Amino acid sequence: MSIKVVPDGTITSPKGFLAGATYIGLKTRGDDPLDMGILYSEAPCVAAGVFTTNRFKAAPVLLCQRNLKGNKAQAIVINSGCANACTGERGMKHAEETAAQAAKKLGLPPQHVLLASTGVIGKHLPMKQVSDGIRKVKLSPDGGHTLAKAIMTTDTFPKEIAVHVKLGNGGKVTIGGIAKGAGMIHPDMATLLCFLTTDAAISPIFLKKALKNAVNASFNMITVDGDTSPNDSAIMLANGLAKNRILKNGVPGAEEFEQALREVCLYLAKSIAKDGEGATKLIQVTVESAQTLDQARNGARTIAGSSLVKSAVHGSDPNWGRIIAALGRSGIEIQETRVDLYLDNLCMMKAGRPLPLDKKRAKSILDRAGVPIRVCLNLGNASATAWGCDLSEEYVTINSEYTT
Amino acid sequence: MSIKVVPDGTITSPKGFLAGATYIGLKTRGDDPLDMGILYSEAPCVAAGVFTTNRFKAAPVLLCQRNLKGNKAQAIVINSGCANACTGERGMKHAEETAAQAAKKLGLPPQHVLLASTGVIGKHLPMKQVSDGIRKVKLSPDGGHTLAKAIMTTDTFPKEIAVHVKLGNGGKVTIGGIAKGAGMIHPDMATLLCFLTTDAAISPIFLKKALKNAVNASFNMITVDGDTSPNDSAIMLANGLAKNRILKNGVPGAEEFEQALREVCLYLAKSIAKDGEGATKLIQVTVESAQTLDQARNGARTIAGSSLVKSAVHGSDPNWGRIIAALGRSGIEIQETRVDLYLDNLCMMKAGRPLPLDKKRAKSILDRAGVPIRVCLNLGNASATAWGCDLSEEYVTINSEYTT
Repeated sequence: MSIKVVPDGTITSPKGFLAGATYIGLKTRGDDPLDMGILYSEAPCVAAGVFTTNRFKAAPVLLCQRNLKGNKAQAIVINSGCANACTGERGMKHAEETAAQAAKKLGLPPQHVLLASTGVIGKHLPMKQVSDGIRKVKLSPDGGHTLAKAIMTTDTFPKEIAVHVKLGNGGKVTIGGIAKGAGMIHPDMATLLCFLTTDAAISPIFLKKALKNAVNASFNMITVDGDTSPNDSAIMLANGLAKNRILKNGVPGAEEFEQALREVCLYLAKSIAKDGEGATKLIQVTVESAQTLDQARNGARTIAGSSLVKSAVHGSDPNWGRIIAALGRSGIEIQETRVDLYLDNLCMMKAGRPLPLDKKRAKSILDRAGVPIRVCLNLGNASATAWGCDLSEEYVTINSEYTT
Repeated sequence: MSIKVVPDGTITSPKGFLAGATYIGLKTRGDDPLDMGILYSEAPCVAAGVFTTNRFKAAPVLLCQRNLKGNKAQAIVINSGCANACTGERGMKHAEETAAQAAKKLGLPPQHVLLASTGVIGKHLPMKQVSDGIRKVKLSPDGGHTLAKAIMTTDTFPKEIAVHVKLGNGGKVTIGGIAKGAGMIHPDMATLLCFLTTDAAISPIFLKKALKNAVNASFNMITVDGDTSPNDSAIMLANGLAKNRILKNGVPGAEEFEQALREVCLYLAKSIAKDGEGATKLIQVTVESAQTLDQARNGARTIAGSSLVKSAVHGSDPNWGRIIAALGRSGIEIQETRVDLYLDNLCMMKAGRPLPLDKKRAKSILDRAGVPIRVCLNLGNASATAWGCDLSEEYVTINSEYTT
C-alpha cells in the first residue's frame, strides 16, 4: 500500500509547516480553552479552497475567495467562538485588518493570508483581542495539535491526521489535515472547517480538482442536522518542499496523491459525523445499484439525515419503515418491488416485501457504535455511502442553550 | 363575516355524515384506545383526495387513487397503529378486502369505499381483527369526535373543527374536518391524515381544485421533522345535502367556499404543528417581499424546519444567526444587504447588519407559546407563512422507542 498513516500525525506533519494557537476570550466554555490560531508555511504555497454554498457568506469566506484568485497563500488565521458572519461592511473590514496584521507579523503580502472563523453568527470580532492574539501566537513545527484544539466549538475531540504517500515515480510526500464539525453539518459544506497541508509540489489546477473531488466524497457525504453555515471552508496549502516532480493530471503519482487526499478527508469527515452534537453512534448508509451516482448519493444522504431514522438508531429501535420512508422522499428513481433493505447483513425487506423481523439480531446491530444500513435498488450500477449520527436528547440540550 | 365556527364542531357536523370507531388491538398505547373507524355519508358524494409524494405509497393510498378516478365515494375506513405500507401484494389484497367488507356492511359498491392507514410501516394488517372491527363499528351523527380520536397515533389531542359558510347566493353549507399528525410531518403531505366533509353540492373539478389549493396553503406549509410518509392523505367528501346551487368556478359562493375550506385546513394544520412530537411551542415563520411566491414558501419552510432554529426556540435562546443560516441554504434569491429579520416586532438584523441585541426582550418573545419569526427580503412582493414547532428532548425520547 502506498499510503501510511503517520503516528500522532497532524497538519504540521508535512515539511515546512508551523502552527500555534492562543486564547483571546472568544470562547466561554471548556477548560484550558484556545480560540485563535495560525497555520504558516515556510515556503510559498499553491492553495485551493472549497466554500459554503449558503447564500450568506461570512466575511472570512469572501476574503478567502478573493485572495485565492491567484492560487497562492502562505498562512491561515483561524478563530473559533465568533463567526464574523452577517456582520456587513464592518465585518469585512475586521477580516481585512486581521489578514493585514498577520501578514505583517509573518512578513507576507496580505493577499497571501487566508482566514476562517466559526462560532456565533451576527457578532462582531473584538479587534483589540484579535490583534493581541495574532501577536501572541507562537509558531512551532509540532503546533498542529494545538491548532486542532483551537478550532473546536462543540466538538468533543480534536480531529487530525497525516499520511505519507509513496508516489508512483519514487517520490514521497506527506498530507496532513485537521477539521472541526459538531453542529450545522450537512452535505454541501456545513459548519465545518477543514485545513489540509502537503509538502507535495503540485499544479494549482490539479490541486483544485483533487480537493474538490475529495470534499465531494467525504465532507459532502456527511450530515448531522441538515443545517449548513455561512462559514464552511476546506482549504489546502501545498508548499512543494518534498521536491517531487510536480503533480498534475496524468503524471505518475497523481492518482496515488488523489487517493491519499480522499482518505485523509474521509477520515476527518467520519470523525465529524461520529462527533456530531450529542451523537453516540456513527451511521453509515450505502445505497447500491442505483441508476446514477447522483441518485445513489442523494438517497444515502437523505436516509442519513432523517430525524426519525436518527432517533430510531439512537434507541436501537428496529423501525426500518423510517429508512424506507426517507428513501421514498429523496426523489430518486425507485421501483418498490425491487428494493432490498439490510441492517449490516440482516435483510429486513426483500423485493419490497417485509421479512419476518428478527428483533433481537436487529437490536444488536443497532446497539453497535457503528451502524451500517444498506439499500439495494437493483436498478443500475451506481453506489454511494453517506455518514451521519444518531439524534439524542443531548443534541437538543446543547442547541437550546448555545448562546445563553 | 360569512364563516362561523360551529361550537364543538367536527367531521359529522355537515348534514348526512355519520361516523364511529372501535378498538381492534393495533395500538398498544393510551388509555381507552381506539384504532379503527368509519366515516359514512347517507347520500353518495363527490370526492377528491391529495396524497403523499413519497415514492413508496401505502396500499390504502394506491386503492384511494384508483377508486377516486370516478370522483365518487361514500365511506372511508381508517385505522391507526399499522400503516399497511411496504407490504407488497399481500398488503394490497388486505386493503381490497377491507374495502369490500365495509362496502358489504354499508350496502355500497366497493369502489365507493376509500381507505387510510397510519402507524408502523412494514407490518401486515391482522385481517381477522379488521373484519371484526368493521362489523363492530357503530355509526352515529355525533361519531366524529370518536373518529378524531381513533386516527391519532402520537398526537396528544384530537384535531377537529367545523364551520358554517354563508354563500353569496343565500345558500348555507357546512364544512367539517379532522386530522392527525405528530411525527413525519413535512411539506408535501407528511404523516398526516386529514378527512374533510361538506354537505355542499359541488362540481368534482371545483372540489379537486379547492382541496388542492387549501392543502397547499396549509398542510404543505407545516413541518415537524422533515420526514414524509407513504400514507399521507387528505380526502374530502361532499354529499350535496345542503341543496345549494352547485358550486363551481365563477359561481356565486364559490369563493366563500374556497376561503372557508382554506380556513378549516389552516386550523387543522396549525393544530398539527402545535402538537408536533415533543413540541412545546408553535413557530410561525413569515417570509415577506420575496421575488416569487415559490421562493417565499421555500424560505419560510426551510427556516421552520431547521433543527438548529427549532432547538434554539425550545431553549428560548436568541441565536438568530441560525435563522439566517437556514434562510441562506434554502436556495432562494437573497441580497444580504437588504435582509431584515424580526422576532415578532423586535428587529434583530437590519439591511444585513446585526442590531444591538436586546436579550431580555428577545427571550421574552421566545418564551411565548407562539413564536413569530419574520424575514423581509426587500426584493419583491410575494410573501408566505409556514408553521413548525420547537425540537425538544421529548421528540427524541418518543422516536427512539416507537416500536419497542
